[in-house]
Amino acid sequence: MTSTALEVRLASRPQGWPTEDNFEIAEVEIPTPAEGQVLVRNVVMSVDPYMRGRMNDVKSYVPPFQVGQPLEGGAVGEIVAVGEGVTTLAVGDNVLHGLGWRDYAVVPAAHTVKVDPNVAPLSAYLGVLGMPGLTAYAGLLATAEFKPGDVVFVSGAAGAVGQLVGQIARLKGASRVIGSAGSPEKVKYLTEELGFDAAFNYKDGPVAEQLAAAAPNGIDVYFDNVGGEHLEAAISSLNVHGRVAICGAIAQYNDTEPPAAPRNLVQVIAKRLTLRGLLVGDHKDLQQQFISEVGAWIASGELKYSETIVEGGTRQAPSAFLGMLRGDNKGKMLVQF
Amino acid sequence: MTSTALEVRLASRPQGWPTEDNFEIAEVEIPTPAEGQVLVRNVVMSVDPYMRGRMNDVKSYVPPFQVGQPLEGGAVGEIVAVGEGVTTLAVGDNVLHGLGWRDYAVVPAAHTVKVDPNVAPLSAYLGVLGMPGLTAYAGLLATAEFKPGDVVFVSGAAGAVGQLVGQIARLKGASRVIGSAGSPEKVKYLTEELGFDAAFNYKDGPVAEQLAAAAPNGIDVYFDNVGGEHLEAAISSLNVHGRVAICGAIAQYNDTEPPAAPRNLVQVIAKRLTLRGLLVGDHKDLQQQFISEVGAWIASGELKYSETIVEGGTRQAPSAFLGMLRGDNKGKMLVQF
Repeated sequence: MTSTALEVRLASRPQGWPTEDNFEIAEVEIPTPAEGQVLVRNVVMSVDPYMRGRMNDVKSYVPPFQVGQPLEGGAVGEIVAVGEGVTTLAVGDNVLHGLGWRDYAVVPAAHTVKVDPNVAPLSAYLGVLGMPGLTAYAGLLATAEFKPGDVVFVSGAAGAVGQLVGQIARLKGASRVIGSAGSPEKVKYLTEELGFDAAFNYKDGPVAEQLAAAAPNGIDVYFDNVGGEHLEAAISSLNVHGRVAICGAIAQYNDTEPPAAPRNLVQVIAKRLTLRGLLVGDHKDLQQQFISEVGAWIASGELKYSETIVEGGTRQAPSAFLGMLRGDNKGKMLVQF
Repeated sequence: MTSTALEVRLASRPQGWPTEDNFEIAEVEIPTPAEGQVLVRNVVMSVDPYMRGRMNDVKSYVPPFQVGQPLEGGAVGEIVAVGEGVTTLAVGDNVLHGLGWRDYAVVPAAHTVKVDPNVAPLSAYLGVLGMPGLTAYAGLLATAEFKPGDVVFVSGAAGAVGQLVGQIARLKGASRVIGSAGSPEKVKYLTEELGFDAAFNYKDGPVAEQLAAAAPNGIDVYFDNVGGEHLEAAISSLNVHGRVAICGAIAQYNDTEPPAAPRNLVQVIAKRLTLRGLLVGDHKDLQQQFISEVGAWIASGELKYSETIVEGGTRQAPSAFLGMLRGDNKGKMLVQF
């Protein structure tokens, strides 16, 4: 074990789209775990859309990243040292924790969750069986109040959350599942591999027209990962008593001007629509049900997932993050150390 | 009884704000009720914001008015003749029905509801005990899922629906009730007569600033009668898990351009807000509970209501409607025949 390691710090706050210049790779001493802490060598880390929000200096549901300080985010690693008083974890254990963006992390043992590489690959705990998976599951079933027979539309459908939303809807009895994505390859993946009934490339033409063609009888549920034009189109296609889970607005995260909100919002009245914001932290009560149900579908092969893994660890994390914002990934975007 | 009577027809569809020219007063023969019908001499009729929407040629939850045909809307009148086979109603009965905007209406007996002038004045069946009353009651309790302790904000608070929303919230245990209206007289009426904790004139300055000052700890429920700037301000003031009942968008009904939707809609995610459209027709199940609860509050004097009554019958209906759109009314706007 070398005595120094790398971490990614926020060098400056981006205006609009972030660039490599907003990040700094710093070399630091590998710390020693204090009482109650463990030292984790990260194996795989997550880059997520919500992290873009934390790069701004605004109050939100998570505090902003600080300039000059390392970034944070979900990661899975192997324990290489334990501090005094740690009895529940041992060297060699794998844990899920919140300090990615660095080679080595010192974490309170109580802030880790032990994971078993024999049950699922370590990366799955950051994706299909992790936060994005629960987001999809709780967002569709609780936030959007999905019912069998619903026509479901999901944007960002080839992403970490979207690919699960569509498949869970299919497995739960949706009458039709429609997805949008940003490349022909992703569209093909949705219909040919994940069992979506229809999919379209939002870059091919107006979303409203493509959605109307894909959903001739309208939609009942919209799971919104992107905001903007997609949300406006969905409002136009929604049937009476339709529901929207607003999970993300990746199309707007880099806007420097106020976004163009849906101009047809008044349709919410005539159609008695429900639009509801979704944060996974509200839905811990569904965690066990989610793990058992989705875990079984993965085991049986009824539910598939893809990951986009970038090699190179800490040094490659910024470019992986930027690629995820551009939509380079299919499914969960991860950085392997 | 004369043999001719007046009715108001749609002369042309308005572009933007309607004018008197969009209406035509026509003289027609008083019809004879056919089998199963009754002939009603209207006593009082309602003018409502939703009627502006029906003047456009767009598909909505109610079909548009037709050019050259009489308008329609809630009215209460006295039966002056009954057709063959009508056994449940008699000459002299008062009924609520859907064919206002005319001196005499021929209505299927099955499309009327008998009302008792000894229980409440006939006008109340078009307002506080009628459709606007149930809209307020169901919108606050069902759509916005009001809970005791909530801070409630209602726009158009001196209107037919708004004045009831604020008082029902107060009587049901809101911790604070805030209203906005469009004149100093209305603001005074809200705080001094209806028991609102705070109220402001939206013409006095930015709604967001006035609302923030009136609700220093934020709001939990917003009952939206006007849309536009009010909705944007409410989203900014809403607390986590806040709820919005979107009942009307009177600020936008005369817009010829797409409205400026809330630019801060993305806050729906971080705050996990619920925005839900409201049409009273979905809430017939609450009708009996509403009548008994609100009726008792009226009887005890705990709930007050005001009406703005325009004399002159059919000839004055267009100007009463235009005045209601401008906000000339305090409480329900009615036309007396």
